Amino acid sequence: MDKPKILSGFRDSLPSDMIERNRLIEKIRETFELFGFDPIETPSLEYYSTLAGKEGGDSEMLMYNFEDLGKRHVGLIYDLTVPVSRMIATNPEIAMPFKRYQIQRVWRADRPQKGRYREFHQCDVDIFGDEDVTADAEIVTVISSALSNIGFENFVININSREILDAILTHFSVADDKKRNVIIEIDKLDKIGADGVTKELDKIGVSNGSEIIDLLSFEGTSEEKLEKFTSVLSGDEAGANALAQVARIIKLAKLGGAKVTFDPSLARGQSYYTGPVFEAKLTDIKFGSIAGGGRYDKLVGIFSGREIPAVGASLGFDRILAAMKEIGISSSCLSVADVYILHFGESTLEYSLRVASKIRESGINVITGYGNKKMKWQMKHAVSKGVKAIVIIGEDEVSGNSVTIKDTNTREQKTITFDELSSEMEKICK
Amino acid sequence: MDKPKILSGFRDSLPSDMIERNRLIEKIRETFELFGFDPIETPSLEYYSTLAGKEGGDSEMLMYNFEDLGKRHVGLIYDLTVPVSRMIATNPEIAMPFKRYQIQRVWRADRPQKGRYREFHQCDVDIFGDEDVTADAEIVTVISSALSNIGFENFVININSREILDAILTHFSVADDKKRNVIIEIDKLDKIGADGVTKELDKIGVSNGSEIIDLLSFEGTSEEKLEKFTSVLSGDEAGANALAQVARIIKLAKLGGAKVTFDPSLARGQSYYTGPVFEAKLTDIKFGSIAGGGRYDKLVGIFSGREIPAVGASLGFDRILAAMKEIGISSSCLSVADVYILHFGESTLEYSLRVASKIRESGINVITGYGNKKMKWQMKHAVSKGVKAIVIIGEDEVSGNSVTIKDTNTREQKTITFDELSSEMEKICK
Repeated sequence: MDKPKILSGFRDSLPSDMIERNRLIEKIRETFELFGFDPIETPSLEYYSTLAGKEGGDSEMLMYNFEDLGKRHVGLIYDLTVPVSRMIATNPEIAMPFKRYQIQRVWRADRPQKGRYREFHQCDVDIFGDEDVTADAEIVTVISSALSNIGFENFVININSREILDAILTHFSVADDKKRNVIIEIDKLDKIGADGVTKELDKIGVSNGSEIIDLLSFEGTSEEKLEKFTSVLSGDEAGANALAQVARIIKLAKLGGAKVTFDPSLARGQSYYTGPVFEAKLTDIKFGSIAGGGRYDKLVGIFSGREIPAVGASLGFDRILAAMKEIGISSSCLSVADVYILHFGESTLEYSLRVASKIRESGINVITGYGNKKMKWQMKHAVSKGVKAIVIIGEDEVSGNSVTIKDTNTREQKTITFDELSSEMEKICK
Repeated sequence: MDKPKILSGFRDSLPSDMIERNRLIEKIRETFELFGFDPIETPSLEYYSTLAGKEGGDSEMLMYNFEDLGKRHVGLIYDLTVPVSRMIATNPEIAMPFKRYQIQRVWRADRPQKGRYREFHQCDVDIFGDEDVTADAEIVTVISSALSNIGFENFVININSREILDAILTHFSVADDKKRNVIIEIDKLDKIGADGVTKELDKIGVSNGSEIIDLLSFEGTSEEKLEKFTSVLSGDEAGANALAQVARIIKLAKLGGAKVTFDPSLARGQSYYTGPVFEAKLTDIKFGSIAGGGRYDKLVGIFSGREIPAVGASLGFDRILAAMKEIGISSSCLSVADVYILHFGESTLEYSLRVASKIRESGINVITGYGNKKMKWQMKHAVSKGVKAIVIIGEDEVSGNSVTIKDTNTREQKTITFDELSSEMEKICK
C-alpha cells in the first residue's frame, strides 16, 4: 500500500503545538469577552457568488471552489469578513450595534512558504453598526489588552487615518490619481528606509518625496505629532477632522490602558478601509505587524446589501505564536498531563485507579500508567510526557494505603498516606 | 443586488448558541485532559485517495471532493478516524501508546434533516497502540466522566462485545453468513420491540428468533447477566473469553466511577469494531445514543499502513446539545456580558471607561454603553443582553466618584463609591 501523504501547505497540530494554540485561543477569547464581544461561527462553505466578485482579483484566484453534488458552485471561506456580512444579511434579527468575535479556519490556495499555510485560523473582532469613535477606541483597547494578556510587554499600536495621509499628500501637491501608488511606497518605509522610498517616489513622478518623508518621520510624542500635523493641515477641513478623530481615539484608548501612538506614515494595504487604521507591532524585536485593523464603513453593505458601518481588527494567530517563540514567552509543553502513575501490574492496578480518581478531583490531569509494561519503560514514558510528578504504586503502597511521589522538578521523593494525596499533589502541580 | 443566501444543510451559530457550544466544548476538553488525553488537530482537506476506498460505499458517496488548483483530487474530511490514522502514518515520531482527543468540523453531503447538518463538529477520544482491556476501561470511564461533568445524571453506558453476540448466535445455530444481517435486526430491538425483531428474523430465515431475543432480554444486574451468559456460552472459548473481558472492563470502569452495564443485545452498526463496543444512553428520557465507541484493532492499519490496536469513542456533539435542552440542563444565555454600563454621553464617557476597566480587573465581562444613544435605548439594549447588573453613570456619579448599580435579578438599586465597585460587582456577578 502507498504510504498516505499530507497535502502540501497543510499541517498537523501535534500535542505540544496544539496545547499552546489552545492556551492562546483561551487568552484571546477571555479578553474579547471581558469587553462584551460575543462569539459566533459561520459555515466553512458558502455560495461562490457570495464569496467572489466584490473584492476582485486576489481572493478569487486563491479561493478553493468547486461544484458540489447538488451542482451548486461553492467555495471554502478565505476570510471571516465576508461570511459575517452574509450572516448579518440572512439574520435580520441581529440587532445593531453588534459586537462579535470569530475564530475559525479559512483557506487560501496560496503558494506555501515558511510560516504560510493554505489552511489557517483567523481571529477577528469587530463592532458593526456603530459609527462613533468610541467604537474605534474600543477595538484598539481590546487588541492592546489581548496582547498584554497573551504576555507581550513591549509593543505599540500605531494609529493613523486614510484621510490624514490623503490631506498630507494634497498638501504636497500630489495629484489624486497618484495617491494610491504613493501610499503603497510609503508603506515600505520600515523595510527600505527613507532614501529607498524617496527614490521610488521619484520614479513615479513625485519629485518632492524627501519633503513628504521628512514630515511623516517627524519625531515626538503622539501629542506633539498631532499638534505638528494639525498646524500643517490647518487649511484642510477633512484632514483636520481626521486628526481630531485620531486624537480622540488615542485619548479614549489610553484611558482603557491601551499602548497606542499616532503614526502619520501608517498606510495599511487593504483598500476597503474608510477611516482610522491601526497596526500592532513589537518594539523589542524586528518582527512586522502581529495585529491590525481599521474602520470599513462600506464593505458590509457590498456583501450583505445592508449599509452598516464597521470597525474591527484581526489578530495574526500564527504570527503571534511565532513572536511568542522568538521572545521566549511561549511555554512549550509535551502533554497536558501533570501526573503519571506508575504501577506494577495486576496487583496494583485497582489501587492505582483509585489514586488517579482522587487526584483528578483536584482538577489535576493524570495519566494512569501501563502496568503491563516494565517499570523502566513506564519511567521513560512518564519523562517523555514532561509531568510535574510521578506517583509510584507498588505492593507496599497498596498494603499500606500510601503512595510514593516524586517531584520531577526538585527530584525529591517521599511516601505519604492516601489522605495526604490531594494537598501534596496540589502543592506540586498548581 | 441579490440577497446572499446560506447553503442548505449549513448553519450560523449566533451568540446564544455559540456560548453554549463553547461551554460544552470546555467541559469535554477539561474531562479528556484530566485523563491525560492530549489535543491534536489535522487538516480539513486530505488527498481523496487517503479518505476514500477503504470503507467503501457510504462515506465516498457523501464526501465533498474536487480537483484543487494544483490538479490534486482532494476531499473534505468526513470523520476524524481516517485523518488521525493518516497523521500517525506521516508522523512516525509519535510514540505509542498515543492518547489523543480531537474536536473538529467534518463534512458530509448528506440529505439535510432536522438536527442533521452537512457540516458539524466531531468529538473523538482514542487510545492508539494499547491492546490491554485497561484501555477499553479508560475510554468508558472518560466518556462517563465527561457526561457527568456536562451535567447529565441519569445515563448509562451499555457495553457488549462483537464476540459475545457472535457466540450467542452460534449457540442458536445461526449460520455464519447470516450473522451480520441478524445483528442488524437485533440492533432495532429498542425501536421495533421483541415481536418486530422476531418477525424480521423469521423473514431472513431465522425461525428461533424469539428464543434469541428471550435470552438477550434476560433481566438482572451486570453481574447476574454475565453469570447467566457465562453458563450459556461455557462451551465456546471465544465467547467465554469475550465475556471475561467485558466483565473486567466493567469492573475497572466502575472503580473509576463510570456508570456502565452489560447489555448483550448491543450491536453498534459500524463493521470496523473488532471487540468490545459501548454506547451511552439517557435513562430518564427516550433519546437514543449520545456517545458510543469500541475497539477497532484493524482500521488504523488499513489507513496508515502501520498495524496499531485502537479503542475509542465519539461524543455526539449536536445530540448532546439537543438532550441538554430537552432535560433542561442547558443554560441559555443572550451574551457573554455580565455588566452593562449606561451613561449620559460626552461628560460621563471618560469616567465610565475608568469604571469599565476597574470591573474587568475582576474578570467580569463588561459592555460599555452607547452614550450617543438615549437612556431609554441603552436600558433596552442592556436588558436584551441579559446582563446581571446595570451600572448607571450620570454627572452626579462623576462628581461624587461613585456609581449607581442595579441588580437585574433582585431589581435592587444603590449608589456606592468607586472603591466599593470590585467587591459589589463580584457579589452580583460571581
